[in-house]
Amino acid sequence: MEFWGVEVKPGQTVKCEPGDEGYLHLSQASLGEIKKDKGTENVPVFVKFNDQKLVLGTLSTENCAQIQYDIVFEKEFELSHGSKNTSVFFVGYKSIHENYAYPF
Amino acid sequence: MEFWGVEVKPGQTVKCEPGDEGYLHLSQASLGEIKKDKGTENVPVFVKFNDQKLVLGTLSTENCAQIQYDIVFEKEFELSHGSKNTSVFFVGYKSIHENYAYPF
Amino acid sequence: MEFWGVEVKPGQTVKCEPGDEGYLHLSQASLGEIKKDKGTENVPVFVKFNDQKLVLGTLSTENCAQIQYDIVFEKEFELSHGSKNTSVFFVGYKSIHENYAYPF
Amino acid sequence: MEFWGVEVKPGQTVKCEPGDEGYLHLSQASLGEIKKDKGTENVPVFVKFNDQKLVLGTLSTENCAQIQYDIVFEKEFELSHGSKNTSVFFVGYKSIHENYAYPF
Amino acid sequence: MEFWGVEVKPGQTVKCEPGDEGYLHLSQASLGEIKKDKGTENVPVFVKFNDQKLVLGTLSTENCAQIQYDIVFEKEFELSHGSKNTSVFFVGYKSIHENYAYPF
Repeated sequence: MEFWGVEVKPGQTVKCEPGDEGYLHLSQASLGEIKKDKGTENVPVFVKFNDQKLVLGTLSTENCAQIQYDIVFEKEFELSHGSKNTSVFFVGYKSIHENYAYPF
Repeated sequence: MEFWGVEVKPGQTVKCEPGDEGYLHLSQASLGEIKKDKGTENVPVFVKFNDQKLVLGTLSTENCAQIQYDIVFEKEFELSHGSKNTSVFFVGYKSIHENYAYPF
Repeated sequence: MEFWGVEVKPGQTVKCEPGDEGYLHLSQASLGEIKKDKGTENVPVFVKFNDQKLVLGTLSTENCAQIQYDIVFEKEFELSHGSKNTSVFFVGYKSIHENYAYPF
Repeated sequence: MEFWGVEVKPGQTVKCEPGDEGYLHLSQASLGEIKKDKGTENVPVFVKFNDQKLVLGTLSTENCAQIQYDIVFEKEFELSHGSKNTSVFFVGYKSIHENYAYPF
Repeated sequence: MEFWGVEVKPGQTVKCEPGDEGYLHLSQASLGEIKKDKGTENVPVFVKFNDQKLVLGTLSTENCAQIQYDIVFEKEFELSHGSKNTSVFFVGYKSIHENYAYPF
């Protein structure tokens, strides 16, 4: 297993690639800088997978600066979000497929 | 393991099928679009399994836009929710039954 | 693994039995119907195990409609709660003891 | 695996012992009785391990009645907290070291 | 597996080293002493890994005294935070690489 992280800037869509030999575990999305003077912002987080776009929760500068996940990807997916002011940081880890029992 | 996700629209009930060879891990329920002008809404989430209907928590446009889960299904189940205004998005992953140690 | 869930009504105590060959993983407690007109209610959740009664957190109609757990039981235990108005729903999964590597 | 739980009363320090053959997984700390008439209380939770004392989060009678953990101990540790009014309940499970592959 | 914890004081950056034979699982960040008389403080948490600096969420003296993580490191990383008043405590566990099934 190895640490994985990516910054998605406002307006960006970032493709993520687990790689041929493993999967990518998404563990958290966090708002970047929270500027109180910009007022409260609700930031929906999106994933696109197999042409299906889904909401992965809503970050909030007021009461939800991060969301925990337990999601696994084996194939390419895309991350984006709805903030105009701040980046969203995604972290997790990459894992190699486990192979049990090599007796010889 | 592979990513799994489904959108359940207002009034819908969605049957989910883990498949013969594995299980489905439910990881999160998220409110879709949160429209502040519609006022606060509390959205109970329901699962039906073996003719038993259970509450899986209550989403809120005000202070609970997503709920984390660690639940596993081997057989068909049904997801629904109580919102009249927005979809609820469910994500998780499907997993093949693990078989350890085939030495010969 | 298979899904497990139980409704505990106001005033009830429910005995739960993991079974001889596995364990029961408790994943969540959720308030049932939240009736705003009944005012705010704090609902302690209790487990009794080996004649020891412990608090498993406090649900709240105002700001805590569900609690996540990562708890495992191998032997009988009892669930109850302090609400006079609503059920508490418990969900999780049952798991068979894993046996690794039977090479012969 | 087997359920584990302990009540730590105000002013107490409780030594916890995983045992020689396994580890102890700490899963949750919960405030006991929440008495609204005593006003709001913030309750820091402490662990002492190898002569190092660390904060394990802060419970609050107002908005944080329980904290989830994913922490593992192989050796003795001590739990305490800062409340003068209520117990803190700790739950989790004990696990035997896993031994894979006894082929003969 | 063995418990791991570190205190990061205001202004400090702490290097963490999983070691050659395993990985480090980061499970939680917690604010130290919360002094109400100092007013509300938002405390971003940072990790530096492979010359990439990422936000790991934002602690708050008002409504977020701890953050749960499920992150894994195999190589050196650095932890820091934005508080001028209080330490942040990080806890988790170290784990040896698992080796399955050495039958001979």
